Amino acid sequence: MDDVIEIIGGRWRGAILASLCDKEKRFNELKRDLGSITARTLTNELKYLEMNKLISREVGTTSVSSVVYSLTKHGKSLDPLIQSIVSWGQKHRKIVLG
Amino acid sequence: MDDVIEIIGGRWRGAILASLCDKEKRFNELKRDLGSITARTLTNELKYLEMNKLISREVGTTSVSSVVYSLTKHGKSLDPLIQSIVSWGQKHRKIVLG
Repeated sequence: MDDVIEIIGGRWRGAILASLCDKEKRFNELKRDLGSITARTLTNELKYLEMNKLISREVGTTSVSSVVYSLTKHGKSLDPLIQSIVSWGQKHRKIVLG
Repeated sequence: MDDVIEIIGGRWRGAILASLCDKEKRFNELKRDLGSITARTLTNELKYLEMNKLISREVGTTSVSSVVYSLTKHGKSLDPLIQSIVSWGQKHRKIVLG
């Protein structure tokens, strides 16, 4: 349980996974998507997610800037869980706010 | 999303909900169940969960100590979500550790 909260509960991790759900992206595309994240934080978060086998990092053969990040199969399996959490959260809001 | 993480991600909240999943309980039964929690923290966490309509607090007519806490219908609806999170977490552990 705590492992999962650590992955999806961080300030940026959920947003990075959501951004990659859409399609694979390069570092700068991700950075633009996420708005106010610093390059250093994004690098660290990507390393964390890669270590957890949720995303993969592929280095292209053409140039250094062609490194591409994408969700692994395991990373994709997190998607329905996030959907359920968001949908329970919406119901929760309605019930609590009246 | 953040609302849900706040509810299930806290040090004690998930454990309190899990303990009440079993059956309704009095304050001291809950405190015993949770081990090292202080009375003050437990009081605060119970207030938080009650405010969020996840548990209800019923005062018996016989004595002050007959206050009983139980899950509301809304609180019970969190159970399948917690199960899914735990089960994804177990799969995640297997994948990451080997």
